[in-house]
Amino acid sequence: MSPPSFTPPSPTTLVLGGARSGKSSFAESLLDGAPALYLATGQALDGEMAERIEHHRRRRGSDWSTLEEPLELAETLEGVMRPDRPVLVDCLTLWISNLMHADRDVDAATARLCTVLGAATGPVVLVSNEVGLGLVPDNRLARDFRDHQGRVNQRVAAICAKVVFVAAGLPLVLKEP
Amino acid sequence: MSPPSFTPPSPTTLVLGGARSGKSSFAESLLDGAPALYLATGQALDGEMAERIEHHRRRRGSDWSTLEEPLELAETLEGVMRPDRPVLVDCLTLWISNLMHADRDVDAATARLCTVLGAATGPVVLVSNEVGLGLVPDNRLARDFRDHQGRVNQRVAAICAKVVFVAAGLPLVLKEP
Amino acid sequence: MSPPSFTPPSPTTLVLGGARSGKSSFAESLLDGAPALYLATGQALDGEMAERIEHHRRRRGSDWSTLEEPLELAETLEGVMRPDRPVLVDCLTLWISNLMHADRDVDAATARLCTVLGAATGPVVLVSNEVGLGLVPDNRLARDFRDHQGRVNQRVAAICAKVVFVAAGLPLVLKEP
Repeated sequence: MSPPSFTPPSPTTLVLGGARSGKSSFAESLLDGAPALYLATGQALDGEMAERIEHHRRRRGSDWSTLEEPLELAETLEGVMRPDRPVLVDCLTLWISNLMHADRDVDAATARLCTVLGAATGPVVLVSNEVGLGLVPDNRLARDFRDHQGRVNQRVAAICAKVVFVAAGLPLVLKEP
Repeated sequence: MSPPSFTPPSPTTLVLGGARSGKSSFAESLLDGAPALYLATGQALDGEMAERIEHHRRRRGSDWSTLEEPLELAETLEGVMRPDRPVLVDCLTLWISNLMHADRDVDAATARLCTVLGAATGPVVLVSNEVGLGLVPDNRLARDFRDHQGRVNQRVAAICAKVVFVAAGLPLVLKEP
Repeated sequence: MSPPSFTPPSPTTLVLGGARSGKSSFAESLLDGAPALYLATGQALDGEMAERIEHHRRRRGSDWSTLEEPLELAETLEGVMRPDRPVLVDCLTLWISNLMHADRDVDAATARLCTVLGAATGPVVLVSNEVGLGLVPDNRLARDFRDHQGRVNQRVAAICAKVVFVAAGLPLVLKEP
């Protein structure tokens, strides 16, 4: 698509999927043709994570702006939304993990995020993991993380105009405007 | 919906989903407007489980009847089905876990449940977890549990009129009457 | 269906699902009415695996040919494809596991498989697991396996004409010709 014919995606879209499901690539494909802002919640704290971030960076190319924000997602997002430039938030899973490690209130942070998304002034695509489809983990921290992730997904899905589940790189639409 | 206009759900409905996917809330939403019977398979054996049961209880409100039955699900269900009152069974996952801990024959119990569901005399909505979409667990008991859960889901799905998969609180219809 | 009226399935079909989701039975149902070749990637290395293979064998009956190939999947598949006989490959998950244990290059093997599938000279149905919908595993080998599985699923899904996700024995179509 050429820029003049670019139709912005639904104001707010949630892309759900498993690990290595192609959810980030699919989310990026929704923005095709637009200069976009990549709002990364991950930090290159170790070699494995650095590899993944670099892999994502190479795929997107150089016409993307990138911003890292591990914790203050709602506040940062509110400051960067613009009608003519989509924001890709990748991903809510690392954000939740960061909040838990920093001992923040995940529910309160999610409420703030949903308030910002409900009044979105530009297109936003959010990527998140579905992590609750395996067996019950045997420690409380992992169960708490899984509970937070599930609740965040439900609340963000309720506020977003469109929700897509990605498996093997292919989308299943869960909700449409 | 007001009670006079209440349309009972499909005679039998299976609601599948992951942990914290919103499957129980979705199952409850199918019964909106009807006085319903909540048939719980979980028992408040520890603090964490008690919290979850109390959380479910608060959400449903006081116009629901509740019955706890950890093991004899088919027999109990058969005794309480009525054309004018839906039964919500929550959930098959805890039931399987209870059967395994009590050293019962899960396949035989599932066969009895399917017989009762196949001759349902009133609306029944059953909630169950999908647990097979993670990595292979490294111990035999967990693999056995996962195998039982998968087989129960397949058999109950085959007998139910309607089957829905819930992710992030949103339904994907797998089977319709 | 009687053999004369047999319509071969899409040239290439990928059937995705969790453990005990009914994906293999569903894949077999796609071939109903045709004499088929079962191309197994699993080996009866221990009692538990032998049980599973025997269970699969009993379900299919005696009119199926069976071939075991743990590693050289692309090469073997290329040699056995025929327009009038579907091949069922069960499953890509064990194949990836075998490749990793044999220290082979999974990406290169996947590229060869996709080349063969892209030039398929007969119907092929491939079964694969979705394993990325649980929590992040805590060891590098498991994460590597999960990454390989996800990438293989994406690449094979991109080349196949049809892709189906199976839950509780019921299909959700992700891609159609």
